[in-house]
Amino acid sequence: MTGAVYIVGLGPGHPAQLTPEAAEALAAAEVLLGYSSYLARVPERAGQLREASDNGEELARAAAALEGAVAGQRVAMVSGGDPGVFAMASAVCEAIERGPERWRQVDLHILPGVTAMLAVAARVGAPLGHDFCAINLSDNLKPWTLVEKRLAAAAGAGFVLALYNPVSRARPWQLPAALDLLRRHLPDTTPVVFGRAVGRADERVIITALDEADAGFADMATCVLIGSAETRIVKRPGREPLVYTPRNARPSA
Amino acid sequence: MTGAVYIVGLGPGHPAQLTPEAAEALAAAEVLLGYSSYLARVPERAGQLREASDNGEELARAAAALEGAVAGQRVAMVSGGDPGVFAMASAVCEAIERGPERWRQVDLHILPGVTAMLAVAARVGAPLGHDFCAINLSDNLKPWTLVEKRLAAAAGAGFVLALYNPVSRARPWQLPAALDLLRRHLPDTTPVVFGRAVGRADERVIITALDEADAGFADMATCVLIGSAETRIVKRPGREPLVYTPRNARPSA
Repeated sequence: MTGAVYIVGLGPGHPAQLTPEAAEALAAAEVLLGYSSYLARVPERAGQLREASDNGEELARAAAALEGAVAGQRVAMVSGGDPGVFAMASAVCEAIERGPERWRQVDLHILPGVTAMLAVAARVGAPLGHDFCAINLSDNLKPWTLVEKRLAAAAGAGFVLALYNPVSRARPWQLPAALDLLRRHLPDTTPVVFGRAVGRADERVIITALDEADAGFADMATCVLIGSAETRIVKRPGREPLVYTPRNARPSA
Repeated sequence: MTGAVYIVGLGPGHPAQLTPEAAEALAAAEVLLGYSSYLARVPERAGQLREASDNGEELARAAAALEGAVAGQRVAMVSGGDPGVFAMASAVCEAIERGPERWRQVDLHILPGVTAMLAVAARVGAPLGHDFCAINLSDNLKPWTLVEKRLAAAAGAGFVLALYNPVSRARPWQLPAALDLLRRHLPDTTPVVFGRAVGRADERVIITALDEADAGFADMATCVLIGSAETRIVKRPGREPLVYTPRNARPSA
């Protein structure tokens, strides 16, 4: 038997939002690798080896997975949401490109999942109903000036924005700076959604407007959606409001 | 019993990529509504009413769903991929905003799914591994000048692009025009992925470079991913190449 690496998207967190192919790959794995808080979501199984690692150790984790597969193991590497969106799939591809030739022969499967922005959007309506961008707000791996350039370009061209990794203990000022920048491009009333841990016990969703958006509403587990000038809030008596971006766009948008 | 509307994301098409909550909502529905080719993916169940409609009839379909729920029915409206990405969720929110007050009281659930760009990306590696945009290339509901503005802004700022609805019988020239525009902003060697019906029997995936990208590779069911200047192709002897965008970005990107 030859080994394989499965990079598995766990989705937003609720088991009912995990795809069957992902659940099967997790159950069939001999070794599970991943960031500890993602691994904690996967039910324990007898005989499975688990190796938790920290954020920032992605290339080492990728190397461990690839070497495990070379040695004949069936390895599952877990990612929150979708593994291709600011997660492990890119790190594994990078490891393969830079690593020894034998890694190119590894049987590699990437199993997509529901990424955070889709879960947050579904929870509040359809804020991503028109053209949108996803931006990783972390400047660990890119200069902040590039983040600023992309925020301005996207907001200026009428894209809705999904901000991933908006804040962490080591990055406290980036989200406030991003919100300040966006206020120069978008109306004060632009809807903003802070969606944290959607579908999990500790879910918290806040719908507000850009002029009242407070970076304190976000933590590491939050995805922040910033509307375009077209995005609307529909009040519903006795129910949560809906936030949506119309399918139509005016020429001036 | 009161009615409800479930807007259900079917995912890319393979049943193993349909979330359990989506499968459950489909099984429990009394009425299924949707575009006929999406409805065809849902197994028939005795006692369920099915009403297929055509593309372009979204608001009428939304009205039918909401009235059904008002009348006490449990209605499932199906969307390919994720219902919040260029699909039915926005149309239903729009109908609620414009429609009679009673529609605001409808019990509404939006169930996210794996949208096409995530499935195509997972199939080839991690082309969406860095900041990216999703653009609906249809100019049915927005002026083409706005599409051009967004393509230029996104490519100019180093976003990877996912193009939805790239072509149809009524819109033959838009994708060639978009590719021409992008060639003015991106290197000839920029990787381009045409991903059609990923995970289904009629899947077709083509990996090429921007200077050789031919709009003829796409049809209505294709999602086209255009890399940034950072996106790379990793050759693997005897295996499909990997396409990925590194997590790092250079200051000049």
